Amino acid sequence: MSVTVICGVSYEDFVIRMEEFHGYRSPGILLGAMMVEAALKDLGTTPYLNVVSETIVCLPDAVQLLTPCTIGNGFLQVLDWGKFALTAYDRRTLAGVRVWLNYDALAGYPLIHSWFERSSKTKEKPVFEELSPEILKAGSNLITHRPVRLHQAFKSSQHVPTGRCPHCRESYPLHFGTACPSCAGKAYCAYL
Amino acid sequence: MSVTVICGVSYEDFVIRMEEFHGYRSPGILLGAMMVEAALKDLGTTPYLNVVSETIVCLPDAVQLLTPCTIGNGFLQVLDWGKFALTAYDRRTLAGVRVWLNYDALAGYPLIHSWFERSSKTKEKPVFEELSPEILKAGSNLITHRPVRLHQAFKSSQHVPTGRCPHCRESYPLHFGTACPSCAGKAYCAYL
Repeated sequence: MSVTVICGVSYEDFVIRMEEFHGYRSPGILLGAMMVEAALKDLGTTPYLNVVSETIVCLPDAVQLLTPCTIGNGFLQVLDWGKFALTAYDRRTLAGVRVWLNYDALAGYPLIHSWFERSSKTKEKPVFEELSPEILKAGSNLITHRPVRLHQAFKSSQHVPTGRCPHCRESYPLHFGTACPSCAGKAYCAYL
Repeated sequence: MSVTVICGVSYEDFVIRMEEFHGYRSPGILLGAMMVEAALKDLGTTPYLNVVSETIVCLPDAVQLLTPCTIGNGFLQVLDWGKFALTAYDRRTLAGVRVWLNYDALAGYPLIHSWFERSSKTKEKPVFEELSPEILKAGSNLITHRPVRLHQAFKSSQHVPTGRCPHCRESYPLHFGTACPSCAGKAYCAYL
């Protein structure tokens, strides 16, 4: 199967937009784009689209490039589960489609298999030009999708009570307790 | 202070890009953009830029619009701390600049103060055209920044051993235990 248009964007334009946003041509984003396309095709058009990405690697950028869902607008949720899978759903009906990599099918695509296995083991960037034709050819063979129902919408519209941290004096959500997460011991940096 | 260029982008172009990416004109992204600008000015030029956002709301999109750091390329880390603050740092030297909202200064800017207090209480979108002139005027008065050193880089280049979940047969990082997070009880959806 030859794919030349992904989510309404020509392959060539998509690669340019990928480089601009993500910083480089990424096989993971190309594969992710095909997953996004499969999910949206199955889910159908909705003005209330949300997406859950089950990995922080690559996939969230495919979603942000091809859908209105971003991390900052709250319609993309990112779980750090290390699973190359996503779920697109309608936040009003909670009906969705989960798409994931069909690991068994990888055996038929040696370059993709080797990249997927190796990608976390070496620092070397995979050669996009070698992988992309195989990813485009493999297409939907690599991807499994099934309808799902979300247990609940991720984005909460409820008011989160905030207060000022007695230590740093910054505003924080009071459900964290009597101090903000940073002052409560989770600080990732120190002032010089 | 009148700001017409933000991180090298004209204000008008920035607002268009914000609408395209984030979906609407957002005072939080405008304020976030000024925080990104303050951090980068202080940090200086580095090809090894990373950013930590201490909230999932708006701020990550300002970073993704104005820097090469995205959630999917691993150079933007997003903490769900509910703090309107970010840290830009050099991942080689771990030297950085933390920028946060100066809560005490809000009193001098009634529209911003009211928006910031109210934003989490109502579902109504704030009126961007009313707020943006005050945000642009307030500029650096609203923002405090200090040099920091990161305790460690967020992005790990270490190999994460993966295996296949005995339940769903999908690939997952073995540090989660004998099942993937979803099969271990964290599933957010169910197959129909």
